[in-house]
Amino acid sequence: MTTTVDARTTAAFNLGPARALSCRECGHQIPLAAEFACSECFGPLEVAYEFGHVRREDIEAGPKSIWRYRNLLPVPTDVQSYPNTEPGLTRLVKADRLGAALGVRNLWVKDDTGNPTHSFKDRVVAVALAAARQLGFKVLACPSTGNLANAVAAAAARAGWESVVLIPSSLEKAKILTTAVYDGALIAVDGNYDDVNRLATQLAAEHEDWAFVNVNVRPYYAEGSKTLAYEVAEQLGWRLPGQIVVPVASGSQLTKVDKGFRELGELGLVDATPYRVFGAQATGCSPVSTAYKAGTDVVSPVRPDTIARSLAIGAPADGPYVLDTVRRTGGAVEDVTDEEVVEGIRLLARTEGIFAETAGGVTVATAKKLVETGQLDPDADTVLLITGDGLKTLDAVADRIGPKAVVPPNAAAVTEALGL
Amino acid sequence: MTTTVDARTTAAFNLGPARALSCRECGHQIPLAAEFACSECFGPLEVAYEFGHVRREDIEAGPKSIWRYRNLLPVPTDVQSYPNTEPGLTRLVKADRLGAALGVRNLWVKDDTGNPTHSFKDRVVAVALAAARQLGFKVLACPSTGNLANAVAAAAARAGWESVVLIPSSLEKAKILTTAVYDGALIAVDGNYDDVNRLATQLAAEHEDWAFVNVNVRPYYAEGSKTLAYEVAEQLGWRLPGQIVVPVASGSQLTKVDKGFRELGELGLVDATPYRVFGAQATGCSPVSTAYKAGTDVVSPVRPDTIARSLAIGAPADGPYVLDTVRRTGGAVEDVTDEEVVEGIRLLARTEGIFAETAGGVTVATAKKLVETGQLDPDADTVLLITGDGLKTLDAVADRIGPKAVVPPNAAAVTEALGL
Repeated sequence: MTTTVDARTTAAFNLGPARALSCRECGHQIPLAAEFACSECFGPLEVAYEFGHVRREDIEAGPKSIWRYRNLLPVPTDVQSYPNTEPGLTRLVKADRLGAALGVRNLWVKDDTGNPTHSFKDRVVAVALAAARQLGFKVLACPSTGNLANAVAAAAARAGWESVVLIPSSLEKAKILTTAVYDGALIAVDGNYDDVNRLATQLAAEHEDWAFVNVNVRPYYAEGSKTLAYEVAEQLGWRLPGQIVVPVASGSQLTKVDKGFRELGELGLVDATPYRVFGAQATGCSPVSTAYKAGTDVVSPVRPDTIARSLAIGAPADGPYVLDTVRRTGGAVEDVTDEEVVEGIRLLARTEGIFAETAGGVTVATAKKLVETGQLDPDADTVLLITGDGLKTLDAVADRIGPKAVVPPNAAAVTEALGL
Repeated sequence: MTTTVDARTTAAFNLGPARALSCRECGHQIPLAAEFACSECFGPLEVAYEFGHVRREDIEAGPKSIWRYRNLLPVPTDVQSYPNTEPGLTRLVKADRLGAALGVRNLWVKDDTGNPTHSFKDRVVAVALAAARQLGFKVLACPSTGNLANAVAAAAARAGWESVVLIPSSLEKAKILTTAVYDGALIAVDGNYDDVNRLATQLAAEHEDWAFVNVNVRPYYAEGSKTLAYEVAEQLGWRLPGQIVVPVASGSQLTKVDKGFRELGELGLVDATPYRVFGAQATGCSPVSTAYKAGTDVVSPVRPDTIARSLAIGAPADGPYVLDTVRRTGGAVEDVTDEEVVEGIRLLARTEGIFAETAGGVTVATAKKLVETGQLDPDADTVLLITGDGLKTLDAVADRIGPKAVVPPNAAAVTEALGL
């Protein structure tokens, strides 16, 4: 349910319907600010709202981006008047051929590769930037190994902000280029991602005008993932799917998709029909899946070893909330091998013409496994979230695919190569 | 103006408002068919229409893809009920920071990197596929060196069609992978692009159920580019821009953008205000720019030598029509060096957070040159077409950009590297 707002907290910032930050553990509330941990219990803070009357027709008449849902996000009403990358409203594709391959009667793919830097990170960064502007920050920053780096550097460039993006110096050259091109302060750190992450927390404390999107403005940033739920429901004709499969890295996205669906029901924008949320992980980094299968609430950290690097968070901050969500909704968490991930990428490409990054392969392969093990209902309306683009993880498929044949330049050779 | 349809020709196929194919040279008309050259004079054939009453509100209530304009395209009314990649309705970004850098008061960027395979080719291929289906074809095919290969392979996969994609065997591995992943018949040909193109024409003649999108169904395919014009006008609030800069490869896109603007005026969907169309080429493949500057109607073929490979057509089929269009509208054709292309890519990324392929660099750099030489009016509303994605041409920038610094994992080192 929507968190209730204490009368004591007032909105000192213009962040639309957002009214306070509320601790997910102890419920303690503080006024809107650049805080991410509860001062009472160190639990994670989440945005609490007082929504006005939100109508379908106002949303439908709004911008063709996530800002059509601005009255459900911690952003000012005039958010679209500030320069931003205008992400969202990506395709929801009815995936009959993939559905037939998986044995799911009615299947949709939410294809977030159409975003400005080709991943869902454009959504969360756009919300973080909008909130950071109101909170008085001047620099947009993050630690990242890929998609987030792209999204932060691009959003800052578009807005005319400085950016500071920290990456491990060992990062693949393609990911460095796709961030460096935006000309922000891209800093390569001699260390692994954990080192980079620690450094970000330290720098956030030292530089009060630096908004590290996934650190000190994380409560606002995370809310951007709700827009995936809003769009799925609107694109289905204002109804909730019966099942949704979401990749799990920190776990934030899965919990926010659930939050988005619940809000739509509470606000009367959709009928509050039951839905089941499923989490997808790569076996080489599956702490949440492991905990789910063990029937425990405790997510034990792991050392990631998987090609699905955008999901390779060994100590997922929202892991316990993922477990809560899937258990409450009757879903599950499942994991798949790197071999299955590659097959998932290829299956999606072959059947629907969508080339996903490794995280998308995890989602497709997990859906397949969930059907085969009887966990996913083949007769329920089902949505798969494809959150990033295959162009960024070409290495995953590079050794598996290529031309069917190499031929001399004559028609007979082509015909023969095709077995015609 | 819209080509008048002879009473003799009747629509044997369900292709919406399309009524005939009309020769652009002699005006001879034939019934709708899979033909591309005039039987009388060998001139190129173009689709002629009889449009019904098309209203803004019907378009606005339509699909969030190019199919909102289905009543202006050679496709059946129920086109969106067949599986397709649903391209279009990409961002039109108000580009104030780029505008300031170029000295253009009101500038917009049409960002077609958001399409399903990240180039405008998804538009033309979607229209080609829809028409090919009606014309009785069973296989989708093309010769290509990149963007078109991606788009054809993806669209065929989504539709459940076989595809045959011919590429030069020397193509970069990344472009091979981004086509091969869709699992069609990708054939590498030992030869250059001219060899591959000739082979396509030969195969199109031999295999009557193969639709080579840019050969035997080219008249339909080419119409897809009109949707760029429709979207620009709708996204500007149903009005035409004063100026538009379009990259020139075969020249087809530029002429179709002009055709789209004219149709909107003729149908009363916008006021038929004057607009000027500008063409952009790389100096290393600038046959149309050369002819424009020489004041001639004759486009002499060149051997391409430029990093802008998606524009590297040395003998552009629609070159003379580009000259007609820019001269009629008061525009121009200009060209820029590869060095300027890279600077154009970087300028667009730095100011607007949009990472374009080399063709986009050509467009931005050409716009800059057109302003500097007084050819582009800095006070007129101006649109730049960005038709493909930088992720596909990383090599163009690989040697120029990178991290600002490589530092050890401590905060002081970061602060020092940033000069703070």
